[in-house]
Amino acid sequence: MSTLFEPFAIRGMTLPNRLVLPAMVTRLSGEDGLVNDDIRVRYTRFAKGGVGLVVVEAMAVHSAKSGPLLRISSEEFAPGLADLARRVHDAGPSKVVPQIIHFLKISRSGWRQTVDMLSLEELDAIVEAYAQAAIRARACGFDGVELHMAHAYTLSSFLSRLNPRKDDYGGTLANRLRLPLRVVRAVRSAVGDDFPVGVRFLGEECIRNGYTVVDAGPIAIELARAGVDYVSLSAGGKFEDARVIPGEPLYPYTGYSGDRCMPGAAYPDGANLPIPEAVRAALRRAGLDTPVVAVGKIATRALAEEVVACGQGDLVGMARALLADPDLPRKWKDDREDTVVRCLYGNVCKTLDENFKRVDCTLWPKKLGQAPESDDIVPPEWPASGAELRAEWKDGRVLLRWHAATDNEAMYGYQVFRAEELGEGSGVLLHHASVRARSERYEDTRAMPGVRYRYAVRPYDLAGNRGPMSATVAISVPD
Amino acid sequence: MSTLFEPFAIRGMTLPNRLVLPAMVTRLSGEDGLVNDDIRVRYTRFAKGGVGLVVVEAMAVHSAKSGPLLRISSEEFAPGLADLARRVHDAGPSKVVPQIIHFLKISRSGWRQTVDMLSLEELDAIVEAYAQAAIRARACGFDGVELHMAHAYTLSSFLSRLNPRKDDYGGTLANRLRLPLRVVRAVRSAVGDDFPVGVRFLGEECIRNGYTVVDAGPIAIELARAGVDYVSLSAGGKFEDARVIPGEPLYPYTGYSGDRCMPGAAYPDGANLPIPEAVRAALRRAGLDTPVVAVGKIATRALAEEVVACGQGDLVGMARALLADPDLPRKWKDDREDTVVRCLYGNVCKTLDENFKRVDCTLWPKKLGQAPESDDIVPPEWPASGAELRAEWKDGRVLLRWHAATDNEAMYGYQVFRAEELGEGSGVLLHHASVRARSERYEDTRAMPGVRYRYAVRPYDLAGNRGPMSATVAISVPD
Repeated sequence: MSTLFEPFAIRGMTLPNRLVLPAMVTRLSGEDGLVNDDIRVRYTRFAKGGVGLVVVEAMAVHSAKSGPLLRISSEEFAPGLADLARRVHDAGPSKVVPQIIHFLKISRSGWRQTVDMLSLEELDAIVEAYAQAAIRARACGFDGVELHMAHAYTLSSFLSRLNPRKDDYGGTLANRLRLPLRVVRAVRSAVGDDFPVGVRFLGEECIRNGYTVVDAGPIAIELARAGVDYVSLSAGGKFEDARVIPGEPLYPYTGYSGDRCMPGAAYPDGANLPIPEAVRAALRRAGLDTPVVAVGKIATRALAEEVVACGQGDLVGMARALLADPDLPRKWKDDREDTVVRCLYGNVCKTLDENFKRVDCTLWPKKLGQAPESDDIVPPEWPASGAELRAEWKDGRVLLRWHAATDNEAMYGYQVFRAEELGEGSGVLLHHASVRARSERYEDTRAMPGVRYRYAVRPYDLAGNRGPMSATVAISVPD
Repeated sequence: MSTLFEPFAIRGMTLPNRLVLPAMVTRLSGEDGLVNDDIRVRYTRFAKGGVGLVVVEAMAVHSAKSGPLLRISSEEFAPGLADLARRVHDAGPSKVVPQIIHFLKISRSGWRQTVDMLSLEELDAIVEAYAQAAIRARACGFDGVELHMAHAYTLSSFLSRLNPRKDDYGGTLANRLRLPLRVVRAVRSAVGDDFPVGVRFLGEECIRNGYTVVDAGPIAIELARAGVDYVSLSAGGKFEDARVIPGEPLYPYTGYSGDRCMPGAAYPDGANLPIPEAVRAALRRAGLDTPVVAVGKIATRALAEEVVACGQGDLVGMARALLADPDLPRKWKDDREDTVVRCLYGNVCKTLDENFKRVDCTLWPKKLGQAPESDDIVPPEWPASGAELRAEWKDGRVLLRWHAATDNEAMYGYQVFRAEELGEGSGVLLHHASVRARSERYEDTRAMPGVRYRYAVRPYDLAGNRGPMSATVAISVPD
């Protein structure tokens, strides 16, 4: 029934499955913009896990100064990129494309360049830079290229309903599309007809007077008609509602639109799925079968299957879930979903980026700096005395403590399960949280007064192998 | 198949159908807070149209000073309210409940009272004021009462994830729920077991760090367990992201959360439906069958039917659509949907409120001040020369002009239809916009370059009777 793990073809590039790693900032590269060891380890690790398509983090098509950011703006970057493409291909079945980006200038004073400041010559230069970068991506051995038209960056700012230009590049939707479509046509013409070109853009800007799927549908249609082979839908991530911190450059993920871009634990699973669903429906109504990548807090195989079955997307994008456990694709495929290290959507990764630090996952074993690798199949064990799970009500929360589990290899963390006891029946134990090994405690801040809960914990090791569930403990929260 | 027009029972109150008019600010009352002629005309008009439940605009349970706002805070307001309830009942089949509200103080200086400034005695007074108002609503002959816990007002600010209180009324979700639940229990105890009590609250705050359906599900469950008979889901409308205008009090519908509260034309139909869907699913999983009112840009019978069929809601709320045409329910029921005067979601009504003006619908014939009434069945006609519809490309838009239609009674407006011609096939003419009579012109700002369009217009009169479609006109937009 499931088509999730069937090959999926995009203009000659055949993905081994429908799972996609969307571009994700890592801050692993240096200011020199060159591929380094950390970058190589990060992306080959995803390929080992078997994801269908790896989209390598945004790399600049131009030479503007920025912090640590990969570059594809001149030939000096080609050897490192070609080596990266080769290594990713050698590491697993994944196809790999770079995301290529142009961005505008921002300064610590709070000033930022906006699209109305660009001359017509500068627009021509942007078109040319994308075309040259796409040619370079092809020459480096990538399987395709993804054009970044999302979030707070140049092409997204042209698409925006807040695009302030007064000429042919602003105002009506047709004008807002003019530069992005020129880029698509130039790239298509540069790379030829047998090289996949995707676009990532916003299905919804999530800012006051920003556009929604009402515009994103027509945008997707025009992009597809201009030769785009897939569209990957993001949301938000704009400067307009970013938090202003004096002396710091604006960071476009600090406002509400930033929340919607990377919906955290307070958001429901699949929070943004109505967006790709609506855009895909618009494409299909226009007679276009362009594949749509759906994203936004998709963490379970059941939800991923539903996305495809219900036509919310053709491909399923997961960034944070794959960061937490790059082996998620093969674990799903092998019916070992219970060994996946589940992302908690605590957005520690987002906070690291926001603070200009290298982006790791807090669930990884401490100081590893990359996702662990292991083919071990021996699960962890509790000590002879058992987990001795205890629960107490303290400061308005349930505090759980237990004994450390042991493993033949190394411990990774614990899953915490919770059941709400309604009436006399006992509720089902559901996965409630995860904590890293060496912190054998958990505080449940979401327990309701007058309710009786049961808890249990379960250890897992570096390979995700689960040890036995602890004995349960019950506690009644005072009214 | 359709259950939209079957009776729907809520704790002894049987609605004639599943359509609901949610509370909507009108600014029709005076500063005295008394029911006046304008209020009587506005609400009896909705009953004549046959909507299942009329929720009368928020009326204050306390005596704090405010602008034009109905009051239910003491006996002096009872005669007018009782008369209003009687008149609504006499005018049609609708049931009618008042929405009752407590709000905090705001000042033109930008200062606003927040929930952490309230003493425990003040909390007791809020609980008591709600209970007394509910008793009064019952005594006045209303069919039930709706407690306002949405948007920027007191009880919503307690539910908010941004509730700053440090005591038992802030912090955890259980604490945030404490005052709202006290209000529900006090109201239930005051009105007895045979009087319906509903709650309107936010399914999503739509602000940074605000809550989403992840919290709204548990909130709905706790409200239902405390004795609430229906929940009506709104979204946004918060002070936290409101636009600051020096010298004006903050208006909580000017930020992004205000957009999401009343999604305008730039939003897709049913923009907020995932919210009631998720909350309803949470209620059902907890074994509760509490009806859910779904809202958010629902304008067509097809969408309303889908809401009920797909379990996105048990009842369908429409504010702006019913303001534009209070006869929508009986027109849908009588299979005359084509005579409904369709809301354009241009949010002129919202802008009027934002500017402290009386809230009318811009589609109503000029200077009427209320929705027109007519049982006329004679449609308008074109003059002998026909509509003579012309199209020209001007200043980046398609400008349409045509001749005025005539009617035996009075003209109301024109519908504008548009088809996109793809290849050689001719697309389907779809309703694109409406314009009021006496402006026999329309500018299409969303025409795309290189596309050929066909247009037609159709006149309608006060009763919504449609005249004949004009001849079509075609125009190719230059590339």
